[in-house]
Amino acid sequence: MTLLQNESVHATYRVRDKEQQLQKRAEGIAIGLTIGTWTELPQARLKQVSAHCGQVEGIHVVSEAEDGQVVADITVSYPVANFDATFAALLTTVFGKLSMDGEIRLVGLKIPTSLQKRFPGPKFGVAGCRERYGVQSRPLVMSIFKACIGLRLPELVGQFEAQSLGGVDLVKDDEIFFTEQYATPEERVVAYRDTARAVAEQTGRITHYAVNLTGPVHRLLDRARRLSELGAGALLVNVVAYGFDVVADLARDPDVHVPILAHPAVSGAMYGGDTYGIEADIVLGQLARMAGADMAIFPSMYGSVTLGRRATDNLLHHLRDETSVHKTSLPAPSAGIYPGLVPQLYEDFGDDFIVNAGGGIHGHPQGAAAGGKAFVAAIEAVGHGMSLEQAALSSEPLAAALKKWGPTK
Amino acid sequence: MTLLQNESVHATYRVRDKEQQLQKRAEGIAIGLTIGTWTELPQARLKQVSAHCGQVEGIHVVSEAEDGQVVADITVSYPVANFDATFAALLTTVFGKLSMDGEIRLVGLKIPTSLQKRFPGPKFGVAGCRERYGVQSRPLVMSIFKACIGLRLPELVGQFEAQSLGGVDLVKDDEIFFTEQYATPEERVVAYRDTARAVAEQTGRITHYAVNLTGPVHRLLDRARRLSELGAGALLVNVVAYGFDVVADLARDPDVHVPILAHPAVSGAMYGGDTYGIEADIVLGQLARMAGADMAIFPSMYGSVTLGRRATDNLLHHLRDETSVHKTSLPAPSAGIYPGLVPQLYEDFGDDFIVNAGGGIHGHPQGAAAGGKAFVAAIEAVGHGMSLEQAALSSEPLAAALKKWGPTK
Ligand SMILES: [Mg+2]
Ligand SMILES: [Mg+2]
Repeated sequence: MTLLQNESVHATYRVRDKEQQLQKRAEGIAIGLTIGTWTELPQARLKQVSAHCGQVEGIHVVSEAEDGQVVADITVSYPVANFDATFAALLTTVFGKLSMDGEIRLVGLKIPTSLQKRFPGPKFGVAGCRERYGVQSRPLVMSIFKACIGLRLPELVGQFEAQSLGGVDLVKDDEIFFTEQYATPEERVVAYRDTARAVAEQTGRITHYAVNLTGPVHRLLDRARRLSELGAGALLVNVVAYGFDVVADLARDPDVHVPILAHPAVSGAMYGGDTYGIEADIVLGQLARMAGADMAIFPSMYGSVTLGRRATDNLLHHLRDETSVHKTSLPAPSAGIYPGLVPQLYEDFGDDFIVNAGGGIHGHPQGAAAGGKAFVAAIEAVGHGMSLEQAALSSEPLAAALKKWGPTK
Repeated sequence: MTLLQNESVHATYRVRDKEQQLQKRAEGIAIGLTIGTWTELPQARLKQVSAHCGQVEGIHVVSEAEDGQVVADITVSYPVANFDATFAALLTTVFGKLSMDGEIRLVGLKIPTSLQKRFPGPKFGVAGCRERYGVQSRPLVMSIFKACIGLRLPELVGQFEAQSLGGVDLVKDDEIFFTEQYATPEERVVAYRDTARAVAEQTGRITHYAVNLTGPVHRLLDRARRLSELGAGALLVNVVAYGFDVVADLARDPDVHVPILAHPAVSGAMYGGDTYGIEADIVLGQLARMAGADMAIFPSMYGSVTLGRRATDNLLHHLRDETSVHKTSLPAPSAGIYPGLVPQLYEDFGDDFIVNAGGGIHGHPQGAAAGGKAFVAAIEAVGHGMSLEQAALSSEPLAAALKKWGPTK
């Protein structure tokens, strides 16, 4: 029953239990989530069945807990032969029934290359996004619509124009923008595309539009192709709300010619607690990248909606891990981002990331265009090794932003 | 800004916060998850936009907590005009960004008829399932394969045959059965269908097969149609792992002629905690039914993997609520079910439910066929107002089951 390590998915679970129960519990998982039982099989059949059997790979006590219990990490491996190329299979096998089995949290997942290869991963990746958006050697800047719902197309176009006048690379829809009462996604893509071209004649820079991809699953692929044809800059997809396999279909499709921008909506329902659910870095980093997220939004460490430092580091690792067979993804830390934070963002995220701002653009005292300019100026400053204060001497928008929000938090 | 109550989705959140913060927090949700902002809109435009604005419907303090905080339920309404006919829209709007906003749990969801109508609901429902399976006025009996993974088709057929000889109505796949290495779902459906017919010549009863629906999303509908044509008895679907919208597509399709049996795999990742995530009755009851679950599996109150009594009652309410526009769903409480529990099951679930057993069938001292017969005998006994002990006098399988597992727990 020896399996090569790279032929199994390794899942690590954090549990609370009596120490002497851990081995039995781990074995129960390894058998229960694979072949179910060892009994009543003729000897001749054991070999075939054993090739599908889970194995206990390790038990590690993390800390003492109350009532004579311990907190421990249990690692179980599942042969890749048990999976098909779907997240449904992956998640159901490693955390299906088990997710309902008392206090247990999925904290780690190692997926061997042979299985990774069967998932699409990003079609563009960091390099492809940089090429498509014409931005090399600096972070990208993405602006979030202040509001979308209830507005008519001309009002939305006005917002898009103001944002693109600031020189941002991308403008993204609200992820909650589903109503088509006043403007369909197709109409928005066309209108913003034309606006972006007109603005580019003034600014020399084209702003791309990340359109919220909406509608029933059976029409999503056609809509993605159509929006792609019409000139969408990216597809904003509520990955958890739709399901990872739905996103993988988009990433696999050769006629969807735009990057996927993954939104983390609803993911907090899975990662929110400490003792149940699935770690944020798995949901928003590892699985999102495997599904095809070229860019991945997640709560920054700076806002009121936050991920901790360690969760962020783990998430970054998954988006950038070079041992993966997939292209890398661009991290887009979100919430609480203002121009004075740009040097800190560089420190925390390096060069390859997206500066994603809503309030930090629309709240600018001189309006959204100035808000975008302040970010662009801050990024140029860091790129040239200048302090923001120094750069502010030649950028009125940056000066005003620093005055309002400060150079650091 | 008056909206009729039935034109909004009402979501109730349990939060922990300072009491004096609750109103502001609730307003922030109502605005933040709809129109985003009130400022900078010309007066003439306020009316249109206000039709899309969320409203605080109520704040109810549940209990005192530590640090001068309280636990409270906040109810916010979202105009139906903000939604399209997808779970992606529903979940992203009411619990998208919000799921990541600190300690918060979605504990209630009221969906007005106008929006409910845009979701499919069960195609068969309780009455349709009863008609299809030829079972009136008693609970259905469903047997779970002891093991699936790694077995060749003849071995699987042998298991199916043993189970159907017990007279059970349905036999379901393991939800973790994804590998097609030894037998495809199509091959299994055909083989079990023929087996069921042969067995029916002896027993007079046909056993139906709930086949695990697997594969990438873009091929799922075709596969469902094909399995339906070939004679599948039900489609077992990992609803949370695939996504509710994927299931809704199956339920909407006129060429899928079989009931959907919803499996709760991965749902514990969402409902497991107390302070984050989404209540189990919403995930496994309300949303599953809206998506098209004719039958809904959930952890019973009796096993080691359990839902509490209140969660179970709420879940049952959602599956059976007659004020819904959708057909009702059959509850299938699972785990820890053995023949002696049948009277208790009747008490807890009435007549319309599924007796779903794995260990309670395969663990029978005389084998799986006797295990099924014991359940059938127990159900007949209760139906005729007999005690199990009395019925066991004329049913050797039931007598053996009572001897092994007891008349009650
Ligand atoms: Mg917003
Ligand atoms: Mg099983």
